[in-house]
Amino acid sequence: MEMSLVFSPGTDNTSPVLVNVVACKNLSLVTANDFTFSGLNIPGNTSNKQGFAVNLVTVDQFPGLNTFGVPVKRLDFAPKGLNSPHSHPRATEVLSVIKGSLYVGFMISTDNKLFSKVMNKGDVFVFPIGLVHFQYNIGDCDVEAFSVLSSQDPGVVRIANSLFGANPEISDDILSKAFMMDKKTVDYIQSQF
Amino acid sequence: MEMSLVFSPGTDNTSPVLVNVVACKNLSLVTANDFTFSGLNIPGNTSNKQGFAVNLVTVDQFPGLNTFGVPVKRLDFAPKGLNSPHSHPRATEVLSVIKGSLYVGFMISTDNKLFSKVMNKGDVFVFPIGLVHFQYNIGDCDVEAFSVLSSQDPGVVRIANSLFGANPEISDDILSKAFMMDKKTVDYIQSQF
Amino acid sequence: MEMSLVFSPGTDNTSPVLVNVVACKNLSLVTANDFTFSGLNIPGNTSNKQGFAVNLVTVDQFPGLNTFGVPVKRLDFAPKGLNSPHSHPRATEVLSVIKGSLYVGFMISTDNKLFSKVMNKGDVFVFPIGLVHFQYNIGDCDVEAFSVLSSQDPGVVRIANSLFGANPEISDDILSKAFMMDKKTVDYIQSQF
Amino acid sequence: MEMSLVFSPGTDNTSPVLVNVVACKNLSLVTANDFTFSGLNIPGNTSNKQGFAVNLVTVDQFPGLNTFGVPVKRLDFAPKGLNSPHSHPRATEVLSVIKGSLYVGFMISTDNKLFSKVMNKGDVFVFPIGLVHFQYNIGDCDVEAFSVLSSQDPGVVRIANSLFGANPEISDDILSKAFMMDKKTVDYIQSQF
Amino acid sequence: MEMSLVFSPGTDNTSPVLVNVVACKNLSLVTANDFTFSGLNIPGNTSNKQGFAVNLVTVDQFPGLNTFGVPVKRLDFAPKGLNSPHSHPRATEVLSVIKGSLYVGFMISTDNKLFSKVMNKGDVFVFPIGLVHFQYNIGDCDVEAFSVLSSQDPGVVRIANSLFGANPEISDDILSKAFMMDKKTVDYIQSQF
Amino acid sequence: MEMSLVFSPGTDNTSPVLVNVVACKNLSLVTANDFTFSGLNIPGNTSNKQGFAVNLVTVDQFPGLNTFGVPVKRLDFAPKGLNSPHSHPRATEVLSVIKGSLYVGFMISTDNKLFSKVMNKGDVFVFPIGLVHFQYNIGDCDVEAFSVLSSQDPGVVRIANSLFGANPEISDDILSKAFMMDKKTVDYIQSQF
Repeated sequence: MEMSLVFSPGTDNTSPVLVNVVACKNLSLVTANDFTFSGLNIPGNTSNKQGFAVNLVTVDQFPGLNTFGVPVKRLDFAPKGLNSPHSHPRATEVLSVIKGSLYVGFMISTDNKLFSKVMNKGDVFVFPIGLVHFQYNIGDCDVEAFSVLSSQDPGVVRIANSLFGANPEISDDILSKAFMMDKKTVDYIQSQF
Repeated sequence: MEMSLVFSPGTDNTSPVLVNVVACKNLSLVTANDFTFSGLNIPGNTSNKQGFAVNLVTVDQFPGLNTFGVPVKRLDFAPKGLNSPHSHPRATEVLSVIKGSLYVGFMISTDNKLFSKVMNKGDVFVFPIGLVHFQYNIGDCDVEAFSVLSSQDPGVVRIANSLFGANPEISDDILSKAFMMDKKTVDYIQSQF
Repeated sequence: MEMSLVFSPGTDNTSPVLVNVVACKNLSLVTANDFTFSGLNIPGNTSNKQGFAVNLVTVDQFPGLNTFGVPVKRLDFAPKGLNSPHSHPRATEVLSVIKGSLYVGFMISTDNKLFSKVMNKGDVFVFPIGLVHFQYNIGDCDVEAFSVLSSQDPGVVRIANSLFGANPEISDDILSKAFMMDKKTVDYIQSQF
Repeated sequence: MEMSLVFSPGTDNTSPVLVNVVACKNLSLVTANDFTFSGLNIPGNTSNKQGFAVNLVTVDQFPGLNTFGVPVKRLDFAPKGLNSPHSHPRATEVLSVIKGSLYVGFMISTDNKLFSKVMNKGDVFVFPIGLVHFQYNIGDCDVEAFSVLSSQDPGVVRIANSLFGANPEISDDILSKAFMMDKKTVDYIQSQF
Repeated sequence: MEMSLVFSPGTDNTSPVLVNVVACKNLSLVTANDFTFSGLNIPGNTSNKQGFAVNLVTVDQFPGLNTFGVPVKRLDFAPKGLNSPHSHPRATEVLSVIKGSLYVGFMISTDNKLFSKVMNKGDVFVFPIGLVHFQYNIGDCDVEAFSVLSSQDPGVVRIANSLFGANPEISDDILSKAFMMDKKTVDYIQSQF
Repeated sequence: MEMSLVFSPGTDNTSPVLVNVVACKNLSLVTANDFTFSGLNIPGNTSNKQGFAVNLVTVDQFPGLNTFGVPVKRLDFAPKGLNSPHSHPRATEVLSVIKGSLYVGFMISTDNKLFSKVMNKGDVFVFPIGLVHFQYNIGDCDVEAFSVLSSQDPGVVRIANSLFGANPEISDDILSKAFMMDKKTVDYIQSQF
């Protein structure tokens, strides 16, 4: 009976149903594999502009997570690799460093105070829900880290991309006034995204 | 008995208690004024760089809101006044325009799609929790608007300020890489905040 | 990704789905209009027995509200117009007066204490979830007000109508005993509804 | 460790604390009695105007209920005894009849539809949160019933009392307009409470 | 309108929908019977190994419970009848004894403290969510009791059965190490289930 | 402002307060260290009867977790090391294997079905809230794993200990009937705890 929670808050699994917009399996068809995900041992490919790769395990890869939240992700950073400032609108993130040295931080709006820290192997750091945060590899070797998120639908807002790479574009009037830069600079940055 | 909920989810109001870190009153001392707030008819002062003013009524001004969420705010915009891109980490916002024409928008991270709209008197618009959004007065006269938020502790993250005005500063390495601009530009923008 | 929350707590919007019994749109079909509602500037028609009109914007008119709660309503009162005693079984209400003078109140059951107040332009008042409350225009001109509710499915129980206008009727034995009035009076009042 | 939940959602019970405005005990002082309540076998005294008595076991009598909700109550009805129309602003009620025949009902506001039923020994009925409902002994012998409520702070709004017995009084203008009765009748009913 | 909550948190009942995996009825087809369940007066059949019977009224028998939780159950115990150690992974249980003497208890993991009590007619006891608990008839006559659970999908984990009657079997290595018994004993116990 | 959520759902941090029974810091005293925990790189000491060690990082070690849930733990297993059957009454667990081969499983009560799996490096497995589960090192080398839990107060019920090591003891009548073993065996097992 309680299995029903695994796939839904309901009490009937005799036929496939939608819960959180994820199809439910008939209980008799459920196997241990529905609760398993493999591959977090495989490093992501960090040969890109940002020198960063993320492998997020959400309910899409992992039906057993449905209604339980707490997706898991692996993060890989090349030297100087950056997970650029972003926020998760619906989740707090707890990050553990497995290898290397990672500089992390988040800002609060009361006086824009920055909370930052250099994390080493075995350190854990929490990024409160909705706050803008970043991670940056300050060492000379690769960094491997794992994160968990407190919602199965955390979402992610990449600040620079969503402002300067918006589609359609946000008008120069707004961006130049918000960032107090001239419109030429705005246009230049937009052209990068 | 149910009054206790007004000040706490508990059942005892014989002595002052803390609920959501807000002091509870002894029920016998509660008056209608604890459920009232006045002054939303008074325009905010928009004679500032951004041409924008907000008057947020939270549980601090308004004890009756405690445990009920839904704070109310009045927004005033001078012509070209901007409520710069920001997000509320813990609340969805529903905005109604009372006077004037307001250009509003928010971005989603899937392909950074921008959802924008020109709002006129009597229009209502919803900004989903945690998403970056802005409001801009595109008209020639003042704009008056009201918002409600779905949490009594909505929070606000002003993007430009928290990134380029962070204290202590976020390093040039990170900001120039994130916004794909040279460090001189980063330094210039930081100097503005 | 986080857009999915706009229409559902799930993570898949590749096909229409039901969330909170509201059909979800394919993300690629969503536009800013799904987050907009127009018409709150239009006064309701108060030429009725109660001299009162309400225009409630729920998720039905306003798909973007789905999963966000906080519906908005406009209330209009003719002089002596009454929003008769009622309760919202699933929401707290926060009311702002835009024009005129409104006498408002709610009762608590501990000793049936009445909390009442004359509200003027710019005043905000909160009616706790489930408590019986009313609003009455005590001025000589029309009153315009806006309310927000803390649930997308607030519900409304009109006390007089649900008791004396119930269908089928509630028996005289019950109503006369509850209101301590003779059955003739009960029958008379029932005949009015 | 999980015992802490019994008294609070926290993890530390080394010293007394408030949770839901209920004092927490030091875990080492907790005994089985904190989870027990006795006396529901004792009939209430129904020799009163309404011929009705209720014995509600809330977290006040029953600290173990704290953070768990589901208070229990015993209801006793003399012949023609009435639990007058009322609502629980913060709880759904599930009632079981142990002895006798009870006529129960609740109204919904959509067209004021009445849902009513004669309950006999062994019947269970659910009254949805916030809806106005009543119970009436239509038999010739006493009725004994038990209820559970889905919140530890259910609250109760007695309709007739809170409207006609409000303190201070609700004005005749409002009550006569709401109930469509002349002010003399309003005054008479008010005098009964 | 608020009826919609009875069947769903949504606002549209014009067509059948699934809520909590329970089919919703068209509001116009709903009757009082949807809120009623009969038969809790009928004793369960306790002529079995454990001398125990339970009759659980969930949302399956009782559509009106949907979205309201608080299912009700009747428990019957023959003399020496046992409701063997089990837990409800998603609900707190509140038990009332109607007839007889019942010995009840639950354990907490901090030092495995046992909280136990002999309950008599009219006593109420609460079993916190997820904790292992049992009920045992220590009297010479039958025991009749009622329980309510704080979730409409409480679930139940029968400890002995799920460990020694698991299908497929849990390996001897694990059970003998966990219970510190030799594998012969493990095999013997497994053979009983 | 939103920082207040880090320590409480309230809006005032001008003085220390309790939230979830955890002391809140004055915001001006908060540092990045309040969001950091170190030491998960240090293996636990597995030289014990069960060959198992766990290092749980809860809100006690880690104030920044308060109100965010998702505690993290490191698990170490010697060869044949066992994390004996247990359940978390208030949390779902997501486990990742960093090194070695781990045999894991949980049972559901519908037909006591066992869901089991051999996990290797990089595998992730989810244990639903409240269900009895175990982990066993079937390899010849040590196993290192990390878990996250979906509640900051997950609790743990060690089945064998809480039943056979209860204090005071659970009576032989109950245990022998529940496990269908003679009382001599019950006494023997109890003597082991």
